[in-house]
Amino acid sequence: METPKKVRWMQDILPDAHKYHTFLKKVFRHELRKNWFKRITTPVLEYKELFEWAIWTGTDIVDKEMFNLKDKKWRNLVLKPESTAPILRSYIENDMQSEPQPVFLYYVEPHFRYDRPQKGRYRQFFQIGWEIIWESDPILDAQLIYIWYTILNKIWLKDDFKIKINSIWTLKDREKYIYALKDFYENKKNLLSEDWLRKLELNPLRLLDTKVEDEIILAWEAPKIKNFLKKDSKNHYEKVKEYLDLLWVPYEEDHKLVRWLDYYCHTVWEFVDNSWRSQDAFGWGWRYDILSKKIWYKDEIPAVWFAFGMERLAEALISKNIKLRNKDKIDLYFIQLWDEAKKVVLPLVLEARERGINTQVSLWTPSLKAQMKKANRLNASYVVIVWIMEAHSWLYQVKNMIEWTQEEVKKEELIDYIISKIWEDSLNFYCPARDLLIS
Amino acid sequence: METPKKVRWMQDILPDAHKYHTFLKKVFRHELRKNWFKRITTPVLEYKELFEWAIWTGTDIVDKEMFNLKDKKWRNLVLKPESTAPILRSYIENDMQSEPQPVFLYYVEPHFRYDRPQKGRYRQFFQIGWEIIWESDPILDAQLIYIWYTILNKIWLKDDFKIKINSIWTLKDREKYIYALKDFYENKKNLLSEDWLRKLELNPLRLLDTKVEDEIILAWEAPKIKNFLKKDSKNHYEKVKEYLDLLWVPYEEDHKLVRWLDYYCHTVWEFVDNSWRSQDAFGWGWRYDILSKKIWYKDEIPAVWFAFGMERLAEALISKNIKLRNKDKIDLYFIQLWDEAKKVVLPLVLEARERGINTQVSLWTPSLKAQMKKANRLNASYVVIVWIMEAHSWLYQVKNMIEWTQEEVKKEELIDYIISKIWEDSLNFYCPARDLLIS
Repeated sequence: METPKKVRWMQDILPDAHKYHTFLKKVFRHELRKNWFKRITTPVLEYKELFEWAIWTGTDIVDKEMFNLKDKKWRNLVLKPESTAPILRSYIENDMQSEPQPVFLYYVEPHFRYDRPQKGRYRQFFQIGWEIIWESDPILDAQLIYIWYTILNKIWLKDDFKIKINSIWTLKDREKYIYALKDFYENKKNLLSEDWLRKLELNPLRLLDTKVEDEIILAWEAPKIKNFLKKDSKNHYEKVKEYLDLLWVPYEEDHKLVRWLDYYCHTVWEFVDNSWRSQDAFGWGWRYDILSKKIWYKDEIPAVWFAFGMERLAEALISKNIKLRNKDKIDLYFIQLWDEAKKVVLPLVLEARERGINTQVSLWTPSLKAQMKKANRLNASYVVIVWIMEAHSWLYQVKNMIEWTQEEVKKEELIDYIISKIWEDSLNFYCPARDLLIS
Repeated sequence: METPKKVRWMQDILPDAHKYHTFLKKVFRHELRKNWFKRITTPVLEYKELFEWAIWTGTDIVDKEMFNLKDKKWRNLVLKPESTAPILRSYIENDMQSEPQPVFLYYVEPHFRYDRPQKGRYRQFFQIGWEIIWESDPILDAQLIYIWYTILNKIWLKDDFKIKINSIWTLKDREKYIYALKDFYENKKNLLSEDWLRKLELNPLRLLDTKVEDEIILAWEAPKIKNFLKKDSKNHYEKVKEYLDLLWVPYEEDHKLVRWLDYYCHTVWEFVDNSWRSQDAFGWGWRYDILSKKIWYKDEIPAVWFAFGMERLAEALISKNIKLRNKDKIDLYFIQLWDEAKKVVLPLVLEARERGINTQVSLWTPSLKAQMKKANRLNASYVVIVWIMEAHSWLYQVKNMIEWTQEEVKKEELIDYIISKIWEDSLNFYCPARDLLIS
């Protein structure tokens, strides 16, 4: 039998990486709650048809790029590749239309894709995203961008990104623009590779969103969608920019920033990594006013969303050498020897932790030497050694490990003594009952 | 096209339920971190063989009760039904043996099962669990139980559960006991149904763990495993009880509490719902010292774990009418009319939120009446109406909605004014930079 292995291109998020995830979740949870978003969780599995309806053109995307499975009744399921369609499905299915509108929802979810991932990317990855459903006012687009901008500033990534925005109008209205694009590229067919020609056929918008240098140069020359906007769309786009200016959010207009699924519309934006590393996107958002018509026969439900990749953002912090404050600094370390001592130490450890002191002990059976070594490596501030004698005498020697001094303290005064010595600030408290009410 | 639907027997966790999940996660996260556990996340998908190895006997469990799928290379995958085997897999694969032992890990994970769920149970469900790997000292079993006991006390479920414990020894040593059990039931074969006879054949331990009344009566009469324990096992079990006594944790011994997978051993325990509702378990744990030998050819790695079902615990709080404190109480509500007012109000709202005031506004386009109604329904403490005139005059009327009074406040003093009026305590702060260090 070999060493058991994780599924290929999946990841274990180990404790050191998890600290960043936990931190980011806390930051976003706080900021989003403040802005009135409520958390939702949809299942990992959805019926395949939900995404087929959503994507419409090219349902082979669903087969090729998603994890497919069948249940025992041969219904087709997929592991969700994203959460916008599932959340809109949930909005409709749970009749959230009867609540006050718009609805503000956010999520922290694993998503899945079946492509061959690039370095550092995985087939299961985490996204935090937020959606505002049933309101078309452009002020919301600007507000979503502002929230993200604020958060990135707060976690010291201020200088590491720039914001690109564009308007892609609506499916129907952008037809005219797509003709113009086709015209533009038609004359240049002799410059185009086979891959390009295929894109030109399929959806010329995709020619604009490219990482190939030649294509980028050509894309700059291409007709710009903002010159084609009709009054309503133009108005929407101008308002978004006006609100961004009002909120002092800097942005760059980029007519090459497009998204090609049918149901995307109006404002699209990206937070682009500005560092030497790459031009990868940190986060991205757009309107999807007509998705509801694709997964449901009824109304058009205007909506807008924003999401970012957790791994990508954690990586940005780590690569900038931004470390998280160590909340686990040990203030008190018990060294115990023999079974009798263990019985004295265990309740003391638990009491100390209950009172907010970060306390560590090896309650199992390592040697004195091993325990000493560990106390040193953990940089414990105070160490108490409990031998058989101490276990019975109720008088302990407390070692101050920073000043290398020692004091004698009575057992019943030990916890108070430590609290008086360490910063009140470093006490670690949370009393759940504070958050509870019995009605 | 019908209304899109979630996959059958899956659940959307909507915001009202999510509040309880968020609360419980916070409580456990805090308590577990205090006790030195670090968070880990393993992928939703694992190779099927991991669970086949773990379960060994009766691999049809894997086919029948799990979600199976194949990747494009026809490798067999499953959606993980539990996290102990994946975490031990991760421990081995990521060479956590080279870190200081034992390793303390916890997780909050979706698990999946393919049976026909009972009412209120789902095919995707969440568990919080914690594992201590590479240490056999019985003090850890007691400590795990103590942590849970403390948590349940803190969230006001003190009187709603009792703790049952038992020892099931080790696979090899319990053979003798199983013979005794078979003997006992052998004479009573005429009383046994076909289902019982099958269990007797397969694993007589399962006859003890039953919800059928006749079977329960018989099980009480059956030989008790604690009379069969050899010295080491007896010693382990006695120590666990001794430590529980020391920590003032009440428990009941129940020789009928058994688990029948081969790799379970020594201490098993359950927190049982004590209310009128049912005898369901809130949470459960046991040792699994030999799991490592089943999924790996090498060493025996002593380990112990505990987990509980999130939905079950949230339900217990709700059914007891324990409500969560509303952190979203609105202190300040802006009513705005016309586009000019919007532009004045938006930055004010964001500043108020930044300074910790729970602020609400309808930035889109509802009528004055709709906004008034909403402010009332949300029980907002202070309301500011911004008409065209206010938008230009910089002098606002602030309505105190509790005392029905009104004061005139300058725009630049508005935020400070509100802060001076509401409790400092109700300000809602978190500054991420506090948790960051640049190295």
